[in-house]
Amino acid sequence: MEDLYKIQTPEDLRKLNIKEKEELAENLRQELLSTVSKTGGHLASNLGVVELTIALHSSFDTPNDKIIWDVGHQTYIHKMLTGRRDKMNTLRQLDGISGFPKCSESEYDCFETGHSSTSISAALGMARARDIKKENYKVIAVIGDGALTGGLALEALNDAGCSKTNLIVVLNDNEMSISKNVGGISSFLTRLRTRKSYKKSNEYIKKIVKKLPGNTGDNIINFVRRIKRVVKQLIIPNMLFEELGFCYLGPVDGHNIEKLEDIFNKAKMQEGPVLIHVLTKKGKGYIPAEENPDKFHSTSSFNIVTGESAKEKAPDYSKIFGETLVNLAKKNEKIVAITAAMKDGTGLTEFAKKFPNRFFDVGIAEEHSLTMAAGLAKAGLIPVVSIYSSFYQRCYDQVIHDISMQNLPVVLCIDRAGIVGNDGKTHQGIYDMAFLNIVPNLTIIAPKDFNELKQMLEYAINLGSPVAIRYPRGGEEKNVFFEKIKQTNYEANMQNAEKIVTGKAEIIKEGQDLTILAIGKMVAKAKIVADILEKQNINAEVINARFLKPIDENTIIESVSKTGKIITIEDGIIEGGLATSTLEVLQKNNMANKFIKAYGYPDEFIKHGKVEEIEKLYGLAEESIKDDIIQYFEKENKQDSVNMTI
Amino acid sequence: MEDLYKIQTPEDLRKLNIKEKEELAENLRQELLSTVSKTGGHLASNLGVVELTIALHSSFDTPNDKIIWDVGHQTYIHKMLTGRRDKMNTLRQLDGISGFPKCSESEYDCFETGHSSTSISAALGMARARDIKKENYKVIAVIGDGALTGGLALEALNDAGCSKTNLIVVLNDNEMSISKNVGGISSFLTRLRTRKSYKKSNEYIKKIVKKLPGNTGDNIINFVRRIKRVVKQLIIPNMLFEELGFCYLGPVDGHNIEKLEDIFNKAKMQEGPVLIHVLTKKGKGYIPAEENPDKFHSTSSFNIVTGESAKEKAPDYSKIFGETLVNLAKKNEKIVAITAAMKDGTGLTEFAKKFPNRFFDVGIAEEHSLTMAAGLAKAGLIPVVSIYSSFYQRCYDQVIHDISMQNLPVVLCIDRAGIVGNDGKTHQGIYDMAFLNIVPNLTIIAPKDFNELKQMLEYAINLGSPVAIRYPRGGEEKNVFFEKIKQTNYEANMQNAEKIVTGKAEIIKEGQDLTILAIGKMVAKAKIVADILEKQNINAEVINARFLKPIDENTIIESVSKTGKIITIEDGIIEGGLATSTLEVLQKNNMANKFIKAYGYPDEFIKHGKVEEIEKLYGLAEESIKDDIIQYFEKENKQDSVNMTI
Repeated sequence: MEDLYKIQTPEDLRKLNIKEKEELAENLRQELLSTVSKTGGHLASNLGVVELTIALHSSFDTPNDKIIWDVGHQTYIHKMLTGRRDKMNTLRQLDGISGFPKCSESEYDCFETGHSSTSISAALGMARARDIKKENYKVIAVIGDGALTGGLALEALNDAGCSKTNLIVVLNDNEMSISKNVGGISSFLTRLRTRKSYKKSNEYIKKIVKKLPGNTGDNIINFVRRIKRVVKQLIIPNMLFEELGFCYLGPVDGHNIEKLEDIFNKAKMQEGPVLIHVLTKKGKGYIPAEENPDKFHSTSSFNIVTGESAKEKAPDYSKIFGETLVNLAKKNEKIVAITAAMKDGTGLTEFAKKFPNRFFDVGIAEEHSLTMAAGLAKAGLIPVVSIYSSFYQRCYDQVIHDISMQNLPVVLCIDRAGIVGNDGKTHQGIYDMAFLNIVPNLTIIAPKDFNELKQMLEYAINLGSPVAIRYPRGGEEKNVFFEKIKQTNYEANMQNAEKIVTGKAEIIKEGQDLTILAIGKMVAKAKIVADILEKQNINAEVINARFLKPIDENTIIESVSKTGKIITIEDGIIEGGLATSTLEVLQKNNMANKFIKAYGYPDEFIKHGKVEEIEKLYGLAEESIKDDIIQYFEKENKQDSVNMTI
Repeated sequence: MEDLYKIQTPEDLRKLNIKEKEELAENLRQELLSTVSKTGGHLASNLGVVELTIALHSSFDTPNDKIIWDVGHQTYIHKMLTGRRDKMNTLRQLDGISGFPKCSESEYDCFETGHSSTSISAALGMARARDIKKENYKVIAVIGDGALTGGLALEALNDAGCSKTNLIVVLNDNEMSISKNVGGISSFLTRLRTRKSYKKSNEYIKKIVKKLPGNTGDNIINFVRRIKRVVKQLIIPNMLFEELGFCYLGPVDGHNIEKLEDIFNKAKMQEGPVLIHVLTKKGKGYIPAEENPDKFHSTSSFNIVTGESAKEKAPDYSKIFGETLVNLAKKNEKIVAITAAMKDGTGLTEFAKKFPNRFFDVGIAEEHSLTMAAGLAKAGLIPVVSIYSSFYQRCYDQVIHDISMQNLPVVLCIDRAGIVGNDGKTHQGIYDMAFLNIVPNLTIIAPKDFNELKQMLEYAINLGSPVAIRYPRGGEEKNVFFEKIKQTNYEANMQNAEKIVTGKAEIIKEGQDLTILAIGKMVAKAKIVADILEKQNINAEVINARFLKPIDENTIIESVSKTGKIITIEDGIIEGGLATSTLEVLQKNNMANKFIKAYGYPDEFIKHGKVEEIEKLYGLAEESIKDDIIQYFEKENKQDSVNMTI
């Protein structure tokens, strides 16, 4: 038994017998629990694939055979079995191993994933390359039933089905995407799961045939009807996938290593594309996660015994968004809400309960969510769609072609905007400002705090044209604007807050020495920096941009005319966002030389780590911004040549 | 008969009897031919839906009932029947009626389309809005079998299927997307089309049952097998769609108005989502188009009798791309080519013939095409994917997340970049430079002429990292660089051309008075402008940017240091493209005040019209650029205050 702790690679694994593999599964499950309870991460999906991962690596000849993990957050067990078991304590930490497949970490990670529904396409590409190069290895895509509702996966099924290429798709069916799965495909899979077995149906046919009455008239028709019903049961299971050109195998119990190995070995013999239907339980083996897979989909650190989170969850932007939308929807019957499989994550659970007929979860289908919203808007409603920033990259044409081109009043809520932290480069929401900035007719806003999110949501609902509101993952680190008031009278505070007016920025603090223009959560940073500078006799003016588009040219120009210098701070890439818009405004007014520095992220993918760590790494911590500015003023005072640029 | 020319609205139409409707169909078909032979446009698809359009408008209560036309290029007959019959001669002309549905043109156009596969999502949105508002009308999505392979449409089918909402999907099955249709869904539809009818199968069952032998042993098994085969035929037709939750009706002959009306009336009675399978022939009624639907998918003006184009087709960028790729592929076995249903349009027909095993048409599935390319690249090949600029908006996340994040050597060919002309706002390829400019690891280039496209394609193939090459619809208007040489020795010319070096621009003409920085096809414009200015004693330096990313900072700064002023010219939006990159370079070097004007398109959707007309409208004609510059120099000489900005 002690030995099983030495299993570090698939080669070690393949030497074990079934009993040992089953024990290994138990060990890995306990290690996983222990790790994730400390590091946080995707727990439920990984608990669900312990046996599946063991069976895959023992049946296939990895790394020669290629396993592509869809979404990739279910690869912790895979990582433990491929040389990274000792490093699991660094999971998702800065400079530690990633929560997703990373080719630089291991030759067993053969394709990087993070967003959903890419695996079949990638696997088909690899399989076709293998055929062209006349090489000989297996390619396996492991995809969940939730990811299968994504258009990309369906396009790939369509192409792969008629490709005649040897390709194995393992459908990891846990009846969940992240929230409960939805749609026609999901219902279809449910019927597959619950059908009577071939054997039973065959026996039933025999029974009917034995009872066969006379051969004429109504009896025959009845007979044919009954046969039809039975035979439908016989052939439905493989129908949808076989119609698309796949050989369908399964369903098989995804927690039975022996059966899994059997079916994988059978699949290896098949020519052409094969789909193996594996039934697993999300959270398997850990009761709190089995009972509440949503909660343990992605978790922070928690107490293993109770399943309770280590720290109580503070209110976050998603929650404030959800609450506010419920309040607005009570007063305005036109408001409807849409999510793409992220009901909990985006804060829409309460809305869904309160207004079930005005709530739509379309599954992992971002493109459809927006075009459907365009239809709802065209027919007179006000759809509010909440999607994570990095997933808006998946429905860009729908923003441009279906919503903005028709100038439809759809409210695009961009959750998880900016650096998201431990999920890392696939999930950083740092591009949205840049790629949305160029869409005609679109208004783009970002609140500095919870209060302003409420105001902005109300503003957006009433705007009558497309509008994007971006806000970060998590909560206000600290509300530096209304700290004291908030504790006493939140509502009064709301009423005192300056009204949102299209294209109008908000001056947070007046000053003469320097303009600090910030947007969204970075406004708080700007205020903190200004407060520190004040003590150093540098009197900065802090402007909350509020609108990235249309940007408030007047306020910026007035301020810079006074202060003579400006910096910008944003929680996104520098190119194309607030810095670029500001530079254009300045240039138009012959003031481009007043732009002394743009704070934001450079032209590279940003790795994982805590938000504060990443901000520090890229010079966005309050301390470094403050230091930069003091240094700049010192140089200027010394009449040195100053060369700080974006 | 004469009267039929007076049919202008669906109300008129509904008064006709079947015979008259059939005659009307013939009349409309002839008018359509006559119109499109003069204006150019989408012919084959419109010829295919004459009867379908008549039957829809006579069976449904439009405009109260809503018809959403997928893609929208098949709405010419719809336009003729909804008040626009007299305006068809202005089709696709500047300020004339659009080649796509436009809500501003008619209340019968209820949702704007242009890109494929949006109709089911939009219709579902409208139907849900109707239900919430407790209104009462039908919503009908008309979608082709090609568009059905798009992920967006499949996502929508999945959601609609389980929605229980009253919604009618008319599947216009012509066995084509634009090129021949591909994929598992297509094979499935073929089987639907060719299945034996229910009646025949039922008779066959009766025959078998009559012949029924003894009731035991092998005989029963054989019997069950045979029954299974027959019953499969009975239930397959509706299987795929019914499994997804649709009631399936059809197939029905799409050129029989009476049968179409019958089935539509039947569909109106159904509760829940209905799919009607209609069989049509692309190009129906016009032999040249029936025989060659690809050619007549989108056509310029032509001779009705012969079917020949009015003017001979000059070589265009797509053709040069295709030829060059064939030549490169002969020498490099790693090169594979991918298209998303645009084999002919992108110039890949020859490649597909020469290298059938290295060519993949994935159907209308842009997302899949790129992720599949990522898989091919990861496994060691060099995929070249050619997609139209405005369709790259549909696979943005795949560029970022699947290709650039893994730094994979995929060549992204961006065909139809810039203003495309008569197709108008849905198809203008003016955003790609801006939204690709912010993608890390991506190189972006654009050739000034055919020659440079060849060089750039060779450069891209050998780069070893992701690269986008953008080039316009159509050909060189006039090669102003190598006019004389070209006629004598094209190959020598190629060899003399300056080599493509990463991040290096090309100086086309030296000058002291002004820098004109242009990219892609606009370099020719810059050269022409410079030649005219020369005669006015303004000596402009013309720089061919070649690289939008990485931009050639040194060459720009050196030139502007000399000339003291710079303008940029690009075939895209100003924001985010060449102008913005140039401004950033200038600002970094404290030269932002030297930027005097950016030529390109503003922050709005650009309507249809000939390319030259649109360019003129937006001040991009050589004449206006030249006039601007002369005016600028005159003002400068007068020491007036100069205020020309981007």
